[in-house]
Order: sequence, then structure tokens, then C-alpha cells
Amino acid sequence: MADARNPVADLRDLRDSIDNLDTAIVHLLAERFRCTDAIGKLKGQRGLPSSDPGREAEQVARLRHQAALGKLDPDFAEKFLAFVIHEVIRRPQLLSRGAIEKCPTLHANY
Amino acid sequence: MADARNPVADLRDLRDSIDNLDTAIVHLLAERFRCTDAIGKLKGQRGLPSSDPGREAEQVARLRHQAALGKLDPDFAEKFLAFVIHEVIRRPQLLSRGAIEKCPTLHANY
Repeated sequence: MADARNPVADLRDLRDSIDNLDTAIVHLLAERFRCTDAIGKLKGQRGLPSSDPGREAEQVARLRHQAALGKLDPDFAEKFLAFVIHEVIRRPQLLSRGAIEKCPTLHANY
Repeated sequence: MADARNPVADLRDLRDSIDNLDTAIVHLLAERFRCTDAIGKLKGQRGLPSSDPGREAEQVARLRHQAALGKLDPDFAEKFLAFVIHEVIRRPQLLSRGAIEKCPTLHANY
């Protein structure tokens, strides 16, 4: 990928990779929200409890392990998960305001 | 994937999907940090400017478009990008404290 004689081209190459990775991540996040929406619907329809205290602890431990395998700072992976879960919890409020497309979601669907 | 007669199994299936998606995202984030570290190294070695005011605006516009294509809230995609860029900017400080593995990184490598 790198051409040591042309740093501007090298920079462009690396940024193209970042853009491709960001596109992939955004589409995986979209799929993740489809799952949490489905969980919200399932919980609402089938009477499952809306919260599950052990679930987030399991996710944190699992994701920290995966981060270490990928040589990513585990603290960052944990912060990323908290960021996404915050959005999942916030989502029903946005839906009720009509700020995003309506779909059934409850708290703690992560 | 869903078995309407067993909501607990359906919930487990959806959570398994979320876990797989999170694993994929974490590894893509790891690769993204490899790119930003490489950009930091390139800028440091080849004397490129450390900041590029137009770059982030381009990323925001591109990612909002991609989010819309994936039916993800564009505001969330923008917040996600800001979250990651914040970490890229914060990373050299962590490196200097030895909190994460040392590698050459400068500001604005996104």
C-alpha cells in the first residue's frame, strides 16, 4: 500500500482504508440496532423482563478479551460498548419523539 | 433464526448475533487504529501537517450518507465518528503515560 516516495499518496491510501473500515463499521452497527430492535419487540410481545443485570457484565468481559486478541486497548472497547448501549437505551425516547424511524424497542435490549 | 414458541431461545439467538457483530466491530476498530497509527508515523517522518481541517467534515458527510443507506440514524453515525476521533486524539497522551502499547501517533490522524 505504501509508496515511501510520495507521502501524500501514502496518506490518501491510509485514509481510503479508514473510510472503508468506517463504512463497514456503520453497516455492522445498523445490523446491531436491527437486533436490539428485534429484542425490544420480542420482550414486549412475549413478556420477557426488560432488564438483565448479568448481560452487560458478560458483554464487557467478552469484548475486553476480543480487544486484547486484536491488540486494541480493552478500556477503549469497553467505552465503545458503553457508548452503543447508551444509544440503545436512548433510542426509545428518540422513537417516541419521532426523531428516528419508529420501531418497537425497550430498555436493556443489548 | 426466530422460534416463536421459545422466546428465551429467540433472545439468546439475537444476543449471539449481537456478540458476533460486536466482535467484528472491535476487530475493525483495531485495524482502524493501525491506520491512524501509521498516519501518525507518516506525518512525523515526512513532515506532513498534523491537522487537516477539511478531512473531518468530509468524513462526517460520507458517514452520514452511509448511515442513511444502512437505515441507521445519521446523527448516531456522526456521534460514533466523533467518539472514535476523540480517542485518536487522546491516544498520544495515553501512549506517553505508557497506558497502552507504544507506537508513533500524532493528532488529527483520522
